[in-house]
Amino acid sequence: MDESNLSVVLHAKGDMRLEHRPIPEPGPNEVLLQMHSVGICGSDVHYWQNGRIGDFVLKKPMVLGHEASGRVVKVGSAVTHLKPGDRVAVEPGVPREMDEFFKSGRYNLSPTIFFCATPPDDGNLCRYYKHSANFCYKLPDNVTFEEGALIEPLSVGIHACRRAGVTLGSTVLICGAGPIGLVCLLVAKAMGASLAVITDLSAERLALAKELGADFAVEVKREDTAEQLARKVEGLLGAQPHITIECTGVQSSVQTAIYATRSGGVAVMVGLGAEMTTIPLVNAAVREVDIRGVFRYCNTWPMAIAMLASKKVNVRPLVTHRFPLEQAVQAFETTRQGLGVKVMLKCDENDQNP
Amino acid sequence: MDESNLSVVLHAKGDMRLEHRPIPEPGPNEVLLQMHSVGICGSDVHYWQNGRIGDFVLKKPMVLGHEASGRVVKVGSAVTHLKPGDRVAVEPGVPREMDEFFKSGRYNLSPTIFFCATPPDDGNLCRYYKHSANFCYKLPDNVTFEEGALIEPLSVGIHACRRAGVTLGSTVLICGAGPIGLVCLLVAKAMGASLAVITDLSAERLALAKELGADFAVEVKREDTAEQLARKVEGLLGAQPHITIECTGVQSSVQTAIYATRSGGVAVMVGLGAEMTTIPLVNAAVREVDIRGVFRYCNTWPMAIAMLASKKVNVRPLVTHRFPLEQAVQAFETTRQGLGVKVMLKCDENDQNP
Amino acid sequence: MDESNLSVVLHAKGDMRLEHRPIPEPGPNEVLLQMHSVGICGSDVHYWQNGRIGDFVLKKPMVLGHEASGRVVKVGSAVTHLKPGDRVAVEPGVPREMDEFFKSGRYNLSPTIFFCATPPDDGNLCRYYKHSANFCYKLPDNVTFEEGALIEPLSVGIHACRRAGVTLGSTVLICGAGPIGLVCLLVAKAMGASLAVITDLSAERLALAKELGADFAVEVKREDTAEQLARKVEGLLGAQPHITIECTGVQSSVQTAIYATRSGGVAVMVGLGAEMTTIPLVNAAVREVDIRGVFRYCNTWPMAIAMLASKKVNVRPLVTHRFPLEQAVQAFETTRQGLGVKVMLKCDENDQNP
Amino acid sequence: MDESNLSVVLHAKGDMRLEHRPIPEPGPNEVLLQMHSVGICGSDVHYWQNGRIGDFVLKKPMVLGHEASGRVVKVGSAVTHLKPGDRVAVEPGVPREMDEFFKSGRYNLSPTIFFCATPPDDGNLCRYYKHSANFCYKLPDNVTFEEGALIEPLSVGIHACRRAGVTLGSTVLICGAGPIGLVCLLVAKAMGASLAVITDLSAERLALAKELGADFAVEVKREDTAEQLARKVEGLLGAQPHITIECTGVQSSVQTAIYATRSGGVAVMVGLGAEMTTIPLVNAAVREVDIRGVFRYCNTWPMAIAMLASKKVNVRPLVTHRFPLEQAVQAFETTRQGLGVKVMLKCDENDQNP
Repeated sequence: MDESNLSVVLHAKGDMRLEHRPIPEPGPNEVLLQMHSVGICGSDVHYWQNGRIGDFVLKKPMVLGHEASGRVVKVGSAVTHLKPGDRVAVEPGVPREMDEFFKSGRYNLSPTIFFCATPPDDGNLCRYYKHSANFCYKLPDNVTFEEGALIEPLSVGIHACRRAGVTLGSTVLICGAGPIGLVCLLVAKAMGASLAVITDLSAERLALAKELGADFAVEVKREDTAEQLARKVEGLLGAQPHITIECTGVQSSVQTAIYATRSGGVAVMVGLGAEMTTIPLVNAAVREVDIRGVFRYCNTWPMAIAMLASKKVNVRPLVTHRFPLEQAVQAFETTRQGLGVKVMLKCDENDQNP
Repeated sequence: MDESNLSVVLHAKGDMRLEHRPIPEPGPNEVLLQMHSVGICGSDVHYWQNGRIGDFVLKKPMVLGHEASGRVVKVGSAVTHLKPGDRVAVEPGVPREMDEFFKSGRYNLSPTIFFCATPPDDGNLCRYYKHSANFCYKLPDNVTFEEGALIEPLSVGIHACRRAGVTLGSTVLICGAGPIGLVCLLVAKAMGASLAVITDLSAERLALAKELGADFAVEVKREDTAEQLARKVEGLLGAQPHITIECTGVQSSVQTAIYATRSGGVAVMVGLGAEMTTIPLVNAAVREVDIRGVFRYCNTWPMAIAMLASKKVNVRPLVTHRFPLEQAVQAFETTRQGLGVKVMLKCDENDQNP
Repeated sequence: MDESNLSVVLHAKGDMRLEHRPIPEPGPNEVLLQMHSVGICGSDVHYWQNGRIGDFVLKKPMVLGHEASGRVVKVGSAVTHLKPGDRVAVEPGVPREMDEFFKSGRYNLSPTIFFCATPPDDGNLCRYYKHSANFCYKLPDNVTFEEGALIEPLSVGIHACRRAGVTLGSTVLICGAGPIGLVCLLVAKAMGASLAVITDLSAERLALAKELGADFAVEVKREDTAEQLARKVEGLLGAQPHITIECTGVQSSVQTAIYATRSGGVAVMVGLGAEMTTIPLVNAAVREVDIRGVFRYCNTWPMAIAMLASKKVNVRPLVTHRFPLEQAVQAFETTRQGLGVKVMLKCDENDQNP
Repeated sequence: MDESNLSVVLHAKGDMRLEHRPIPEPGPNEVLLQMHSVGICGSDVHYWQNGRIGDFVLKKPMVLGHEASGRVVKVGSAVTHLKPGDRVAVEPGVPREMDEFFKSGRYNLSPTIFFCATPPDDGNLCRYYKHSANFCYKLPDNVTFEEGALIEPLSVGIHACRRAGVTLGSTVLICGAGPIGLVCLLVAKAMGASLAVITDLSAERLALAKELGADFAVEVKREDTAEQLARKVEGLLGAQPHITIECTGVQSSVQTAIYATRSGGVAVMVGLGAEMTTIPLVNAAVREVDIRGVFRYCNTWPMAIAMLASKKVNVRPLVTHRFPLEQAVQAFETTRQGLGVKVMLKCDENDQNP
């Protein structure tokens, strides 16, 4: 490996630069990775445009990127389950403390967790990156690097559908047909959902959703009320959906999610909007519609790899654009304009394949 | 039994009358009960004062009362598990249809359920009342009629604590120290909660709550913000509570419930306020604090009787006033003024004992 | 409808007769069905050959058959959700009492449940049959009568996989590739299992299992020890399966199921063997492998219909033989000899289509 | 601290010695403890008498003891939540690898876990002992060192009752009134069990169990059949118990546990007997009585401390004998002879208080 470690660094709101950083040295429980494919997430763009998300504020330069896969080039002294050459997917969240959340299997809730490209923690949109070996997962030969990188957004869908309790014969409403709505759709179907309705403002996005398996697509008009949309969904399914997965964060859509869900069902909040939201709480309460949020994910990589290896889920159509790392700015601009679904950056100069 | 069936009948908003009605004849699967003790619930008073609760509107005269116990005086032809003379507690909700909710054990969610003193269904604040035998539960000798009647509010607490997942070592915040807050407190402690904080505007109510087992009582001032209250609770417990049970329905208290609950915990909504409520939804979502409502209860009478018979829960201190059935108006007035905790009407002329 | 009700009646062990019985009259909550397709189950054959299964002993003549679908020809006075002409699938178990099991959603455990073709309750292998309307489920137009009849065995698979907790990425071992093993396979895959191994003594059965989606098929030799088989399964999957579904009831296979299952996993016992079974209980206990039985099913018909209507599960290949009702003896003989998978009896003289 | 570290070392089957070992130096994430109270467990005695338990074989000298509490005397460089002087309870199991079990909150199942006094890992029956700081839990002032040491056996009860799903109104059968049966009793009651039956061969043990809260005590005779005992328990409770916790490992008692448990209930296996056990598996399966094992515990110390601090559980009566560390041999002999319930060794020369 050469000494150059080209990295996409956010210096301040609006100030993203491609620059060379030193190649890091892995600690005893870490591995050094030569990055291969890194997807751009809406949150990367949001940090670029705004310099913050909620309480997470950029205070010093930070490498972007957290949807990633790469090849092991060096292993720390205590690492036994990986070796140089292994192709791995990277789980970007690594708990720092063995607190009550970690011990009980919900490490995503640990308040001190390290997370790639969440200030102040560096991400992996670069040539070389070191990471906790315990949070690098070996990819089987029949899973590509890009599929490996897509495990990150797929994990959001898995965690949401798992929190929602999707199971055999579930009927599911998904609000929003962006990348997260689409992975929720793919996962819900793979977990046995019999029917899925998806909503969006964009006919184009809905068309892709139907290709990916949505049974019904509802084009939302800005003048539709939450209750009207809920009834429309009920009409399409013949009954209210057991589960709603809200992926927009828009208040009216959150309201739709609650009105639409069947009594005794679950409305999962994946999209994040304004801190304070006005919702029909009594409607939810007296019908025992549970409102559950999701914060990233935990324990999803192994099952995601299993699904990809067994071809139960096909995430490949999600990648609509590819750019070499050197063209990161164009890549970010593409995502910012909402073009396509997933933009993939190719970090390995010698292998730009999927 | 004589032919008189003195009943407390609500004719219209504000128009509650004591009048004689015919003694009903039980159907094949029903029993006729001579009522003994019937507690007054806030909802009874609400119908009296407002003629409606949400979508439930009084359209014809309705007998009030649904916290009840009595003695079997006649059994329908198909009834085998009860006989005249049996002392029973009455579960006021009886599903009418064998729908998906009933078949899956959540019959409280069945939209066509019969429910005492919810329009248009008559309640049991009267001398004689017939009810589905399957929803009358025999009381052991060591459980009094009044304890039997109190199983109804106790069931609200059981269902709320069960939905909340209270278990060994749980720390619990209860918002509101009215009758429902108090039964939630009793049940949470019986299910293994290690510490309970209770809040209320009234110092008097809080004093009773402490007598009944609350570890900490917080007197809420109208100027307290939700976040301040949440921090105060955290300070008292040394950590955020695992579970919050909101029993007021007041928007600021709902907000407190969410801010106060530990990440990964549960906030249960028992109190009902305005249809639309503004809540810190993002705070709940990113900390995976589940928001769960409760609608009445299901499958609680047997475990409530078990708790009362084994003296694990003592509900007797909740009864602060007793009136003979003939003085129903004074009794309702007492509840309306918020005096005491639970007002009990004694329906059996010959036995006015607890 | 004519007056003839040709029925397959078991009079005593070995004495099965085709005879004419009166057409029954539906009660207020019942419907009269013109039967269309009825599958033969191993238990039907077992009653025919042995006159009993465990404590269920034939003491008077009984109509056989419980995997059934038909068309409504008459509805009781209280029935509102069905009308003559409706095509329905029949759930053969109907709880008789509103006991604790029924109220809590596990009506299959109700000790007094009615169940078709379990002594002394008559089944539905006949021309006309009446049944509780609440346990007849309307079939959509795109689900055939035979698929409707196959919901019964499919329900065994659904209940087993649900009790097992099959979910996204589960790896599953299925012991036995008979009809029940095959429906467990289909359901496990539909619920998100990534890999399934199936075992059997018969290479022919295993070949069909592979066609239906098994990733690995293991031909069991009588000399294989339980531990050897467990290791073989682990080798194929690269790790122990999360879940094992035992469908043979054979002691050595039960032992394999326990040894094979990953720590913290579940072994579900679907097959029934001798009352007393010797198992490696300490091995299961110290690895926290839960052992769970299944008794028939509950709350499966709606989700099964949803799966069939949405084409998520294809049960059609299971039907390998069809006979008109008049040839019931040959049909039973075919099942007795273990030929094919599922033998279907066609009860409607005018419509012998699938 | 002086240089002496008197330790109870098992050299070989039957060869237990008191000897001086070096005081260990804590690593960065460890603390050095001055041990205060260490209870003797049946497994300690079993290693002493047999040199092995199942696959765990003593191959080199090992310090005994794993029910322990002490005072922090030194903290590693990375430790922030503890400081010298803190009184702590010691969780003896410390996962070594961040494997799937640890990540999902079931670290007790991690095959490479460190565990005090399980070969080859040293225990803490000594003057000075170092341990992972993350598995030392600070004791509140109102919890004694001995209560802190008793958290270990109490954790077995917590884990068993949690796996059993004990909740409000549960009726529970506990087979065996030794130390583990007694802690299961205490915990079941604290989690809301309404009635508990306990069985044992010894009238003396049963008498103590009744003092500690058992509602019924059944003296088992060797000639009682499993089915007879099951019926006796049903007779005492008026119905079959929802839950059985088997703490003897004796085959006939395991059989009783299954026959006795109500349909849909849970039989938890805490006691360990012979590897192969003959059980009425069909009886369990067709009544959906789940059979669940327990392996030690996980995530129990915080809730146990909460229970002790809030005085919801009183474990003090379990300590029937105390010996200074120097008299370890007499102490072990006392346990070996089955005298009393819990024998406590006092490791701090200057503080032999509870």
